[in-house]
Amino acid sequence: MLTQNQIKHIRSLQQKKFRDEYKQFLAEGPKLVEELIGSKFSFDCIYAKKEWLADNAARLQAKEIQFIEINSKELERISGLIAPNVVLAVINTPEKSFPENIFGKELILVLDQIKDPGNMGTIIRTADWFGINHIFCSENTVDVFNPKVVQSSMGSISRVNVYYTGIEKLLTGIHTKVSIYGAYMNGENIHDIPVQPNGVIVIGNESSGISTELKQYIHHKVSIPYFRGPNERGAESLNASIASAIMCYEFRKKTAHVS
Amino acid sequence: MLTQNQIKHIRSLQQKKFRDEYKQFLAEGPKLVEELIGSKFSFDCIYAKKEWLADNAARLQAKEIQFIEINSKELERISGLIAPNVVLAVINTPEKSFPENIFGKELILVLDQIKDPGNMGTIIRTADWFGINHIFCSENTVDVFNPKVVQSSMGSISRVNVYYTGIEKLLTGIHTKVSIYGAYMNGENIHDIPVQPNGVIVIGNESSGISTELKQYIHHKVSIPYFRGPNERGAESLNASIASAIMCYEFRKKTAHVS
Repeated sequence: MLTQNQIKHIRSLQQKKFRDEYKQFLAEGPKLVEELIGSKFSFDCIYAKKEWLADNAARLQAKEIQFIEINSKELERISGLIAPNVVLAVINTPEKSFPENIFGKELILVLDQIKDPGNMGTIIRTADWFGINHIFCSENTVDVFNPKVVQSSMGSISRVNVYYTGIEKLLTGIHTKVSIYGAYMNGENIHDIPVQPNGVIVIGNESSGISTELKQYIHHKVSIPYFRGPNERGAESLNASIASAIMCYEFRKKTAHVS
Repeated sequence: MLTQNQIKHIRSLQQKKFRDEYKQFLAEGPKLVEELIGSKFSFDCIYAKKEWLADNAARLQAKEIQFIEINSKELERISGLIAPNVVLAVINTPEKSFPENIFGKELILVLDQIKDPGNMGTIIRTADWFGINHIFCSENTVDVFNPKVVQSSMGSISRVNVYYTGIEKLLTGIHTKVSIYGAYMNGENIHDIPVQPNGVIVIGNESSGISTELKQYIHHKVSIPYFRGPNERGAESLNASIASAIMCYEFRKKTAHVS
């Protein structure tokens, strides 16, 4: 049985200010929660229906994760999903220190004002697929612990480190040491640019692209070629998560392996 | 001033059965509606606030589009968006006849049970970018005129033709004439397969992939290589819209041009 205070607390985690205050975030549904139990994250508490708890009792005990059994009505009251699904977890936000000396040593993604939670989660999931371990975001990029980001990242938030920082200051510090590539509408064809496998890829906002003040730090303005006749009308742009996926794919291509 | 019947009618178009009955669908927001006014679609009526109507009066008159001025409160009552935005259009669903003799002549996309409206809209937008004109969907793929599909397709629904049909029957009829490629988890590396530029690409359901009964018609089971060490854990899969984008990109690469 949940108390009013528990319900209020869990619901408050839908909002960034309370996630920041309590240093906790939400994950829902059996697939996601079960994957995150196997991750480095520490859990505050799992709220789940009887059948899920029965199936997962051994793992919860092994990991010493606290849980509370709830019924369908209670799950509906705490869930942020349209169709609540068996289990909701309150997870402690991991402490992250800003990594040193990684630029030029691995492929890095920089996000400038990505606003859509679905795009953000998909970008994290795709980065994870392509072995990108660090994503740097402008302060006004959507919160990585927004429940919709968590859901669409499909567990990849436990492997990919996401940092929020001033992007201009970041690029000022690194642009003399590493090649910086930006996704633009009218850039060079991605097939024609020299790819530095450990470069930095910058993806801009869904509507307005990369901020003007960042332009001076970007060595290669890159476009994904479209396929239309010269007088034929097509889509104006690609979705930000699609553009970043194709860029990551192209950068990883030469050294990629299926295992 | 809207009548109760008008409000009820517009709201009903959130549901497939009423979209099918009235042969109408919804589009919202100035960017999308303005793009669709320039398309082949015929409009039933536009419901918009004074400022939008003032800005677009000439175009509405030129296209002979009927409109009704509404206030913010009325817009809120008819809108399906969390943040309603100035204008909502009721558009007549175009009549589409099943195209003949296109297989083997252009690149075609086949969707087997895509369920997420955001994925569906993004796939249509990406297809449009890569000059794919026809998408064939299983009957249980999400409706192309679902408001969330319409929103995330960003106007591309006016250029890309989407058909619903039995996919097994479709593939039975064409698999001896054209190369069929399917996105699989454990297929051949996409870099190693012979690409037929006018082939057919099949994308499966977000969770379960391509239906078992379709497997026999697929000549090339294709995977997008991931980039992780042999004992390193990464994302289990790519989002369906990302996988289809990378496949379309790879198929178009050799002949692509930026104009």
